[in-house]
Amino acid sequence: MNGLNRFIAIWLVFFLGAGGVFAQEKVDLEMMHRIKSEGIGNSQIEELSFYLTDFLGPRLSGSTNLRNAREWTAQKFKDWGLSNVKIDEYGEFGRGWDVKKSYIAMKAPYYAQVIGYPKAWTNGTNGLVKSEVVLLEINSDTDFEKYRGTLKGKVVTTASNLQLSPAFEAEARRWTDEELEARKEITIGGRTGRYTPEMLAQLRAQRELDQKLTKFLLEEEVGLRLTGTRGNFGTVFHTRAGSFSKDKLPTVPELEIAAEHHGRIYRLLKKGIPVEIEAEVEVEWLDDDYKGYNVLAEIPGTDRNLGTEIVMLGAHLDSWHAGTGGNDNAAGVAVMMEAIRILKDLGFQPKRTIRIALWGEEEQGLYGSRGYVQKYVADRNTKEKKAEWNKISAYYNLDNGSGKIRGIYLEGNDMLVPVFEEWFKPFHEMGANTVTRRNTGSTDHVAFDAVGVPGFQFIQDPIDYGRGYHTNMDVYERMQFADMTQAAVIIAAMVYNTAQRAERLPRKPWN
Amino acid sequence: MNGLNRFIAIWLVFFLGAGGVFAQEKVDLEMMHRIKSEGIGNSQIEELSFYLTDFLGPRLSGSTNLRNAREWTAQKFKDWGLSNVKIDEYGEFGRGWDVKKSYIAMKAPYYAQVIGYPKAWTNGTNGLVKSEVVLLEINSDTDFEKYRGTLKGKVVTTASNLQLSPAFEAEARRWTDEELEARKEITIGGRTGRYTPEMLAQLRAQRELDQKLTKFLLEEEVGLRLTGTRGNFGTVFHTRAGSFSKDKLPTVPELEIAAEHHGRIYRLLKKGIPVEIEAEVEVEWLDDDYKGYNVLAEIPGTDRNLGTEIVMLGAHLDSWHAGTGGNDNAAGVAVMMEAIRILKDLGFQPKRTIRIALWGEEEQGLYGSRGYVQKYVADRNTKEKKAEWNKISAYYNLDNGSGKIRGIYLEGNDMLVPVFEEWFKPFHEMGANTVTRRNTGSTDHVAFDAVGVPGFQFIQDPIDYGRGYHTNMDVYERMQFADMTQAAVIIAAMVYNTAQRAERLPRKPWN
Repeated sequence: MNGLNRFIAIWLVFFLGAGGVFAQEKVDLEMMHRIKSEGIGNSQIEELSFYLTDFLGPRLSGSTNLRNAREWTAQKFKDWGLSNVKIDEYGEFGRGWDVKKSYIAMKAPYYAQVIGYPKAWTNGTNGLVKSEVVLLEINSDTDFEKYRGTLKGKVVTTASNLQLSPAFEAEARRWTDEELEARKEITIGGRTGRYTPEMLAQLRAQRELDQKLTKFLLEEEVGLRLTGTRGNFGTVFHTRAGSFSKDKLPTVPELEIAAEHHGRIYRLLKKGIPVEIEAEVEVEWLDDDYKGYNVLAEIPGTDRNLGTEIVMLGAHLDSWHAGTGGNDNAAGVAVMMEAIRILKDLGFQPKRTIRIALWGEEEQGLYGSRGYVQKYVADRNTKEKKAEWNKISAYYNLDNGSGKIRGIYLEGNDMLVPVFEEWFKPFHEMGANTVTRRNTGSTDHVAFDAVGVPGFQFIQDPIDYGRGYHTNMDVYERMQFADMTQAAVIIAAMVYNTAQRAERLPRKPWN
Repeated sequence: MNGLNRFIAIWLVFFLGAGGVFAQEKVDLEMMHRIKSEGIGNSQIEELSFYLTDFLGPRLSGSTNLRNAREWTAQKFKDWGLSNVKIDEYGEFGRGWDVKKSYIAMKAPYYAQVIGYPKAWTNGTNGLVKSEVVLLEINSDTDFEKYRGTLKGKVVTTASNLQLSPAFEAEARRWTDEELEARKEITIGGRTGRYTPEMLAQLRAQRELDQKLTKFLLEEEVGLRLTGTRGNFGTVFHTRAGSFSKDKLPTVPELEIAAEHHGRIYRLLKKGIPVEIEAEVEVEWLDDDYKGYNVLAEIPGTDRNLGTEIVMLGAHLDSWHAGTGGNDNAAGVAVMMEAIRILKDLGFQPKRTIRIALWGEEEQGLYGSRGYVQKYVADRNTKEKKAEWNKISAYYNLDNGSGKIRGIYLEGNDMLVPVFEEWFKPFHEMGANTVTRRNTGSTDHVAFDAVGVPGFQFIQDPIDYGRGYHTNMDVYERMQFADMTQAAVIIAAMVYNTAQRAERLPRKPWN
């Protein structure tokens, strides 16, 4: 390093350290205190959680319940005095689908109830189906011929390969300090693909066979298909869904049943012992509206210059359909609603506009957040920027269950490390102190990050999330209200800081 | 200690040590090796487990499935070449009861399936019941009047007070060496009752109120009663049952439903939000036979003197009705069947008779084993001894799930410590090495111990037993076949040693 470079380097450290960042990130501790007091003292978390889960029910994309949930949350925002409340159409989603009845039991070799749920967007049965179960053993194209012409109205199933092990590890845990520290680590290179080309070819072949089977069962007019799922002790995980596209035929009636109950049926059939099933599934298709919607509401910005800029917070309102989407993601919705309520009830008049978004149709592929971004922010394919691209300072998302916040993923945005480290300081004693440059995937912040607008998901304690999400048991009881109260307070603080900051948050390059 | 006493003491140590016990307990290591080889090499555990659970189904006391299970196990004993196989009536039990159909769902505020099972020995519904749920809040006698005359045909429920917590501890575990050592400890005195007189009075008052409620609901001709149970993630624990007595009226139709689903209904009702239920329960009462039965089979003793003496092993064949009684107690039955199969297939000709007993009706209060003891062994009330009292050397029982054997409870029989310590030595490497003088309760060995005949239950690893027993999820998947294989080998060895021992096992004094 030569003398001039050394000078510049020292100057940069001084400038960034003393002027550029640290001075700017001075946190308003009195406001942090007021946010904590309101959030902890007057928490609405439990009440919101009840209404979002027990009262509104499962909120499958396109379903009647999700429509009700949009109306209910929009009304709640109005009741709280938020501005510009709207149920905002973002584009096309697909068909709505409601379960009207679902019953299944084994009739032979003896009567036994079966825990099972209609796979989303599959057809209902033709009244009560009663049939012996046919075990389909299809490993290649030629195997279809063994069954052709014999399956009309029958109950069919395929192999159950699931071995269930006893749980020698706890279902719920909290991150240790060591684990959190390890989450900061970044590895360059050395990332090995999980699949070899042979494995990929095999997976592709299996998928093709699966698709053929789906088509075959439809042609054969099968009465009901039974599928075993992950999960144990009667917890049923949702696998892929049927088709919600308005341009495709729905698949045959299909019930996803508890691993133990499917295992029993499969083992009996493999021993040659006949199994008889009776079942009835009634569904209703909603073809009056194929659009998707987000619920939006605001605390308008008051600053003459910054008031047109926006800080966003959000979570997805839709869920899977067999539980009530407690941890995935009534928890996130309740926390985000509570965060904006705290700020509103404190009478906060932000410099920048604060906008909450409750996304629709996340579970089928981030439809709601991507639709919003496409409509207002930017086209991620053409890279065309739209009105809000330059205005949104940050989007904060919560969608990893109801465990408390332990830190934040920066999606590689180095410039934000010193900012968020300062912002987290008043919350260290509540367990939130990890700022990692790492990415995290699979939820609505990705829609913003994809167009270069800072979008973030928090590091949360993994309490019951791994076991409960996408299951029939993701319900009110899974939600940890104390943890959610902490999360709401921290997010209210993050939103406050973002709204008041002199500059927009620094961005990664995008064009 | 004076000189003569010291001499006697030394002599006693010598006699007991060298002659009285140790010489006698010399273990036939070649036979131990053969038992291990047969049990591990040709294990029938998995096959037996399948038939006892998946194939025979739930085996509620008095039910058709239990009748089938008696026939099936008796036939299996005959197929194996065992002698004196019989289905042995021991006395009166009560009414049989089968579930023919069970369906329940919430219809309002939205459609949702409910995981629930008819409480044993309650009536079926009068076809499909459809009604708003009435929340009964009854805390004193006068509260009944609020509801009198209003409940005919209605669905009713009572409060749900259950708080479900996330599981920060693993469901399955194995005893550590330290925990096993601690199980040897005996505390004299200092045992404090868990209930104060005030608590007992309160419990009694609550029980009386419960009984009044049961009677009230019957008089009011309620359509269906819903009860929340312990358990979470959809696992339903059975609580007390309805009445199987042929002299009493059955109680109103009652479904035990998952804690989460009951919690939802309760919370909605408490908020004043109407909940509508549709349900149908069909049951069949079996009034052709009120007797109870055990299944017995033998390998006859061949010794001229000892051949009339008996060593018994057993487990209960009945189970609760919503699962298939995997760990409680198909596991014990499979292990005991396997233990006697090992000995039979080794061509073993025992000195004493080996008798296996598969007990009926354990879950309602050890009916089968107590009935057997009353019929053949002794009257525990009058202390009258019967034919087998003097003949049975020991009874070995297994009923703590499918976890492997880690030791044995001696029920305070000090004289057996050196015996069983020797017998366990060839199995130390398999994890069985704890001989504790402690008691353990609540299962069929107690019937023998109560009349002074040595009866034992083993210390077993608590794998899924605490979570799974008495639930809808106590099924094939809960059973640990490797552990059960170990248990069968050890029990075969214990039975072998008991059958061949010069003396009957030492007894505690009785009457």
